[in-house]
Amino acid sequence: MKIGVFDSGIGGLTVVKSLLEHQLFEQIIYFGDTARVPYGIKDKNTIIRYAIEAVEFFKNFELDLIVVACNTVSAYALEEMREHAPCPVIGVVEAGVLATSNKMPHKDSNILILGTKATINSKAYETQLRKLSFDNLQAKATGLFVSIVEEDIYNGSILDATFAHYFKDIKKPDAIILGCTHFPLISDALQEYFGEDVVLIHSGEAIVEHLEQLFAFSKKYDDPKLEFFASENPEALRGVAKRWLALR
Amino acid sequence: MKIGVFDSGIGGLTVVKSLLEHQLFEQIIYFGDTARVPYGIKDKNTIIRYAIEAVEFFKNFELDLIVVACNTVSAYALEEMREHAPCPVIGVVEAGVLATSNKMPHKDSNILILGTKATINSKAYETQLRKLSFDNLQAKATGLFVSIVEEDIYNGSILDATFAHYFKDIKKPDAIILGCTHFPLISDALQEYFGEDVVLIHSGEAIVEHLEQLFAFSKKYDDPKLEFFASENPEALRGVAKRWLALR
Repeated sequence: MKIGVFDSGIGGLTVVKSLLEHQLFEQIIYFGDTARVPYGIKDKNTIIRYAIEAVEFFKNFELDLIVVACNTVSAYALEEMREHAPCPVIGVVEAGVLATSNKMPHKDSNILILGTKATINSKAYETQLRKLSFDNLQAKATGLFVSIVEEDIYNGSILDATFAHYFKDIKKPDAIILGCTHFPLISDALQEYFGEDVVLIHSGEAIVEHLEQLFAFSKKYDDPKLEFFASENPEALRGVAKRWLALR
Repeated sequence: MKIGVFDSGIGGLTVVKSLLEHQLFEQIIYFGDTARVPYGIKDKNTIIRYAIEAVEFFKNFELDLIVVACNTVSAYALEEMREHAPCPVIGVVEAGVLATSNKMPHKDSNILILGTKATINSKAYETQLRKLSFDNLQAKATGLFVSIVEEDIYNGSILDATFAHYFKDIKKPDAIILGCTHFPLISDALQEYFGEDVVLIHSGEAIVEHLEQLFAFSKKYDDPKLEFFASENPEALRGVAKRWLALR
């Protein structure tokens, strides 16, 4: 199978990493819209327009599947992408919701959803979780985490102060949905802040789980063909990909 | 005179505020590229492309002058804008450099330049300050300030931790260039951190000073015509403009 992975920037590489670890695909084509990142502060209509443009780009390849690694796009533009795409389109939001449902047997578990302003405002996670009878929900837009992680800060006093700021009215949850591809990079700090017993839901792992439920993967590919595209500075994207994915 | 003010987003409204206070113009047309903000993390070539598109937009009006309120655009794309524009183009970087020179009589004064990653990497302020014989320079990319200000945080522990992080190797300067339109919003906190004797250079005030040197303004306009355009969500831009500029 040939898969396309779409993200607004480089964050979706955390999803590619999970896909590679599970050796599910013969070929992975990544597209990061690095010229227009971040999407998380943008309008619904703009996000939809950009998402449809990404589908058009992917039409250059004969893909079997498109994975939307960006939570904001998954929250706002999945239906529109499906209308335009010649193949199935799977998003991290639905995958994260299913992973939460799989990991949390009790419907009264308290689930804390973290994401960008756009993702949280969309209420996409909340709507889908409520359909699965999870009603004990907290949601918090934690957009500063993106900028902090992009400064290569993963712990320390800035993050501590930011946690105190964002979480002052948040009660301890049973699970946290890391509703932005950047957030797995501060999962250690979050785990330390909230406690080791809190379950963290990671988009990359959730999407692999979801795909394994949807498709019969008969073969393992230990050396898949990888291609990286970016709307700006593809060299920088490939550099990050090399480091994060430990490519040769 | 009819003036166009260009910024990557809403930050340039701090420059419009200064222009209004000094009542220099009959008509002010603001364009914020809110669909593609922030520019400060983008490539030189992308910034130039966007800046030229802004010039094309301003060709819809018969302007006498374009002011580039965005430091990143001023640092990277001023020459290219001038090539395409039918009127003079003035940027905040040259204005900030001249204001520094006017305010700091001693060439050995230590000047600290703060800005986005793109502005600092461009070395635009440093190059122009050195031409005026200022050689005692420090520069620091402080991009997190943008995200922090956009969360409406202007003081407190997050900002304190961020100051400690960014300024740990910075020695006390004589003047600080606020090389990003968002930074005047934390000038009180910066003044408190560095001390009351440190001179802060503000883009809006610098541009007014620069314009008054360049043009003979014979009339005052106490009720100029104001128009606000945005590439996304113009209602939001107009809302911020009303609040920041105290418009009726």
